[in-house]
Amino acid sequence: MSPQERAAGPVDSTRSPHARLRTLAYRSVSLSGGFWAARQATNRQVSLPHGYRMLEEWGNFDNLRLAAGLIQGKQFRGYVFQDSDVYKWLEAVAYELANRPDAELQAMADEAIALVEAAQAPDGNLDSHYQVAEPSGRWVHLDYGHELYCAGHLFQAAVAWRRATGDTRLLRVAERLAGHIDSLFGPGKRAATPGHPEVEMALVELYRETLEPRYLALAHFFVDQRGHGLLGKSRYGSLEYFQDHVPVRQASTVVGHAVRQLYLTAGVADLYLETGEEALLAALERQWHDMVERKLALTGGVGARHEGEAFGEPYELPNDACYCETCAAIASILWNWRMLLATGQARFADLMERTLYNGFLSGVGLDGRHFYYVNPLLSRGGIERPEWYACACCPPNVMRLLASFGHYLATSDASGVQLHHYAPATIDADGLALRMETEYPWQGLVRITVERATGAPRRLALRVPGWCDQAALRVNGQAVAADPTAAGYAAIERAWQPGDTVELELPMAPRLVEAHPRVDATRGSLAIERGPLVYCLEQADQDPAVDVMDVEIDPTRPLDARWRGDLLGGVMAIEAPGYALDLRPWQGRLYRPLGGAEPGRRAVRLVAVPYYAWANRGPGAMRVWVPAAR
Amino acid sequence: MSPQERAAGPVDSTRSPHARLRTLAYRSVSLSGGFWAARQATNRQVSLPHGYRMLEEWGNFDNLRLAAGLIQGKQFRGYVFQDSDVYKWLEAVAYELANRPDAELQAMADEAIALVEAAQAPDGNLDSHYQVAEPSGRWVHLDYGHELYCAGHLFQAAVAWRRATGDTRLLRVAERLAGHIDSLFGPGKRAATPGHPEVEMALVELYRETLEPRYLALAHFFVDQRGHGLLGKSRYGSLEYFQDHVPVRQASTVVGHAVRQLYLTAGVADLYLETGEEALLAALERQWHDMVERKLALTGGVGARHEGEAFGEPYELPNDACYCETCAAIASILWNWRMLLATGQARFADLMERTLYNGFLSGVGLDGRHFYYVNPLLSRGGIERPEWYACACCPPNVMRLLASFGHYLATSDASGVQLHHYAPATIDADGLALRMETEYPWQGLVRITVERATGAPRRLALRVPGWCDQAALRVNGQAVAADPTAAGYAAIERAWQPGDTVELELPMAPRLVEAHPRVDATRGSLAIERGPLVYCLEQADQDPAVDVMDVEIDPTRPLDARWRGDLLGGVMAIEAPGYALDLRPWQGRLYRPLGGAEPGRRAVRLVAVPYYAWANRGPGAMRVWVPAAR
Repeated sequence: MSPQERAAGPVDSTRSPHARLRTLAYRSVSLSGGFWAARQATNRQVSLPHGYRMLEEWGNFDNLRLAAGLIQGKQFRGYVFQDSDVYKWLEAVAYELANRPDAELQAMADEAIALVEAAQAPDGNLDSHYQVAEPSGRWVHLDYGHELYCAGHLFQAAVAWRRATGDTRLLRVAERLAGHIDSLFGPGKRAATPGHPEVEMALVELYRETLEPRYLALAHFFVDQRGHGLLGKSRYGSLEYFQDHVPVRQASTVVGHAVRQLYLTAGVADLYLETGEEALLAALERQWHDMVERKLALTGGVGARHEGEAFGEPYELPNDACYCETCAAIASILWNWRMLLATGQARFADLMERTLYNGFLSGVGLDGRHFYYVNPLLSRGGIERPEWYACACCPPNVMRLLASFGHYLATSDASGVQLHHYAPATIDADGLALRMETEYPWQGLVRITVERATGAPRRLALRVPGWCDQAALRVNGQAVAADPTAAGYAAIERAWQPGDTVELELPMAPRLVEAHPRVDATRGSLAIERGPLVYCLEQADQDPAVDVMDVEIDPTRPLDARWRGDLLGGVMAIEAPGYALDLRPWQGRLYRPLGGAEPGRRAVRLVAVPYYAWANRGPGAMRVWVPAAR
Repeated sequence: MSPQERAAGPVDSTRSPHARLRTLAYRSVSLSGGFWAARQATNRQVSLPHGYRMLEEWGNFDNLRLAAGLIQGKQFRGYVFQDSDVYKWLEAVAYELANRPDAELQAMADEAIALVEAAQAPDGNLDSHYQVAEPSGRWVHLDYGHELYCAGHLFQAAVAWRRATGDTRLLRVAERLAGHIDSLFGPGKRAATPGHPEVEMALVELYRETLEPRYLALAHFFVDQRGHGLLGKSRYGSLEYFQDHVPVRQASTVVGHAVRQLYLTAGVADLYLETGEEALLAALERQWHDMVERKLALTGGVGARHEGEAFGEPYELPNDACYCETCAAIASILWNWRMLLATGQARFADLMERTLYNGFLSGVGLDGRHFYYVNPLLSRGGIERPEWYACACCPPNVMRLLASFGHYLATSDASGVQLHHYAPATIDADGLALRMETEYPWQGLVRITVERATGAPRRLALRVPGWCDQAALRVNGQAVAADPTAAGYAAIERAWQPGDTVELELPMAPRLVEAHPRVDATRGSLAIERGPLVYCLEQADQDPAVDVMDVEIDPTRPLDARWRGDLLGGVMAIEAPGYALDLRPWQGRLYRPLGGAEPGRRAVRLVAVPYYAWANRGPGAMRVWVPAAR
């Protein structure tokens, strides 16, 4: 296999000995329209050029110019991790260039790469904050210093760039820095673990790309060093913030800073894919259950607390005060992808889907140039997406995930091909060329047409989302029972012929969902879902006389889905019978003895829109969970 | 009037031109037993000596010794506001010495006062952090520097000490520092306002004690300077944190750091009492309604957010993640007392009562040597009161409020005497000597016996708490209708004779209360109250097979109050019919489509205890709000 052929997007598990599923060569998947292709187009046409301008405006490029000695007389600007925004943006451009050539993006990236090259110190060190603003702090502050974090993002960008373009400029920079880091840390050298995980998954990927075992060993080392108190207490007074309170193999919960926690679990999953150490996977499984059963917002968002951007206690899931950072949603997607590769189990793809369509996608406005860092499930109004953030971790993180979306559609294994997510696309894997057609997430029909096949029996597995309990499968128009052993996937093994079709029908009736009785903030309330989408009520869609904060939904009457091409770029809206409350009996009171006058109720039709599309029409109120009329 | 006769506890409104109510000379009120006297005894016998030891152990006294040059070779320890703990403790000792002489406390305080005197610089400056650790930072950091905050606490301690003992040592120190501050700040001098309000109410009290108009003018100046952005953005990125976003007279909401906000409103109320400026009172009224109708926990606690120790949005009132700092409860009490003095309106005393018996008193363990900084309304377990805090603002704040409790019982005006709170006590005011007998808060009967009277007609007003809608009043055993003009007070005007009795009967049936429909965290839930007490369910009191997190209360069946002398130092416990839930249908799920199997329900008797007494039997789970069975 030529290097170009194994170009594999963010993760290349093709040679990972403990991967149940192999990632595909990135160019073997091509989106051909639909929901995600439209978002990719906005990402390419608007977000990536916008990011380039923002990186100039907020000083990121100047920081590198200062480090390179190309300019003088300016101060370093921004956070210690300012370089990482450049690397994430470069990684996003790489994926986009793999999707299709773009001279303008290529030129912007070439300029940025030249700056990165020029900024690197002769010893391989590269971190503009420490080069320009704080030379004496170099490698001193492993807790909050973010040098290994920035290095990790460089490594990921470098691998992506190499895979997308074949150009090794950035990879050479990355390897010089990796060598420098390897000269400092490791067995017999300095014991340390990064305050913000990221370098673990990046080092494993750098190993996968270069086959240099030192990188894998270093990732292993950083994972092993965690949980022994090397980082000390965080600013919030705990070791949990850094996930440094317990050795990685003994962890059973997700705690502390949510992005740190989930970049760590993603890195540990990468390590498992290479080493197969069962204790790692067992810990990840325990942590996954803790997150999914006790600490997850309906949108897939994680991080219940603003303070420390952190996971809360079990069932501490406020709608208004939750953090649900966009980067944490992305981190969850990255982790779940690696769990899926390790196990082949659909529940990980299910959670990816919930997060992709909801808590992740809400992080970017429909226009592609406004972003959310925090993604609450209830807003009383006044929250708008800004163009950029002083701490701008999220926007370029959104860009790299959108640009690499195709990577996550499908995998292969010895038996055949697995389709995990649904979008119009062509997929060329394992001797099969497939065309996927669908109006997902608006309609539940997915049609696969075999365009080329070797004639050998191959197993085609299509994920049946956890939200769907009535999937129907047809091959060449005939209903078939799917292989019952493939839990979560409808699988058919067959000697495929060109022209064969497989249709998966996933009925998308809107549904009401409820939350665990221990969750305070959702008690007595219901949310609307349809297909993979979580819905919300925005003030903008309601009768002007109705305050969206003072409504109830009627759980006994049917929901009505309607395509609204005029709305929010085209969405399936859902109308729900409900009531507007007249709260005059509560005027001037916050508490009262039981038995007071009940609020008046007036029947209304509530209009719900997909959560991802909220806050694109001004800073009105919004809620996902709606009290149920009794 | 001799200075000793106007000795007036924390506030002396006797000459405040705009006070509707006059505070009493502190020694004219003497607690003679009951609920609060027992807490005062623990405060005197345990908490104050414990505080003295902690101030030694945590370096507070050493900081002053370093500033005084009495010791060398040590570093300053603790926060920039470390001195304030000493001052609050001294203020508490002062009130306690006014209650009764105590040679041991007197000796401890004398030692501390000598240190304070010795630490003061020749120019009057006094702040051990800036004297010892950061001389170059003196008066530089008005935002987070806390020098005016520390000065304020010194002034309050000095006034209290002078009023309690007649000794002017501390007052001389305070006046030298006040003079120093006055030389720096004011019209034509430096424009500034303190990052943490406190000095405003302290300067007004210093003025009341000394009649030096410069102190009142300086308080006025600091209030006027606020709201013009002098402080800049806080660490949380907002001006609201410091209440510096809007001029004081234009404020309409309570926002930002809760203690800062309420120390400010307390100081503004003090300013109003002296100046009568209606714009100040109007702003305070708006802010009060915002707090009471939208941002108040049932316990009287305030501050919905850990991040920034801050008020949340309207109706953002989580049970688990709320902050409800003990100091914020105290600040609310201090503010409401001043609003009561300004207006004579019972609603302010009502809120004081709610806060005193619940959100304040939970801040100290029954043993008097363990403290809470944060007072949630729901704990899943694992939270215990520590002996002290690195940031120890709350423990000595509790001590000074408990020691001065008698100050808040009664006031007088031209017409007579007002009784605001109920406790066994003797009260000598306005020519009337009264003996109050009651088992409040356990029983609702309050009996006042006139022990001495001048024979002139005087009006005696007894607050009828807002929670009571069936109060009965008897004079010398005969039912009387109370004066209907005195909203919130049952008032009788009469030429009182020794031996006359007034009985106020406040029926104390336990009651269920509900919260405003906009509050997410309490939806579908009820809380138990009886008299002024908010109740909670602690795991320790339930059937061991019942998890207090998985219960419901039956709102259709009566609550049953029972005296339990064996429990928590003697409490009225409340038994409530309810259900224990069997959540097996939710096993492994956090969300599910509506219509799944309902949890099993088993009838149980729930046992509730007063909220103030929680967490005295280990770190078990606790909840105030209990889901209502449907």
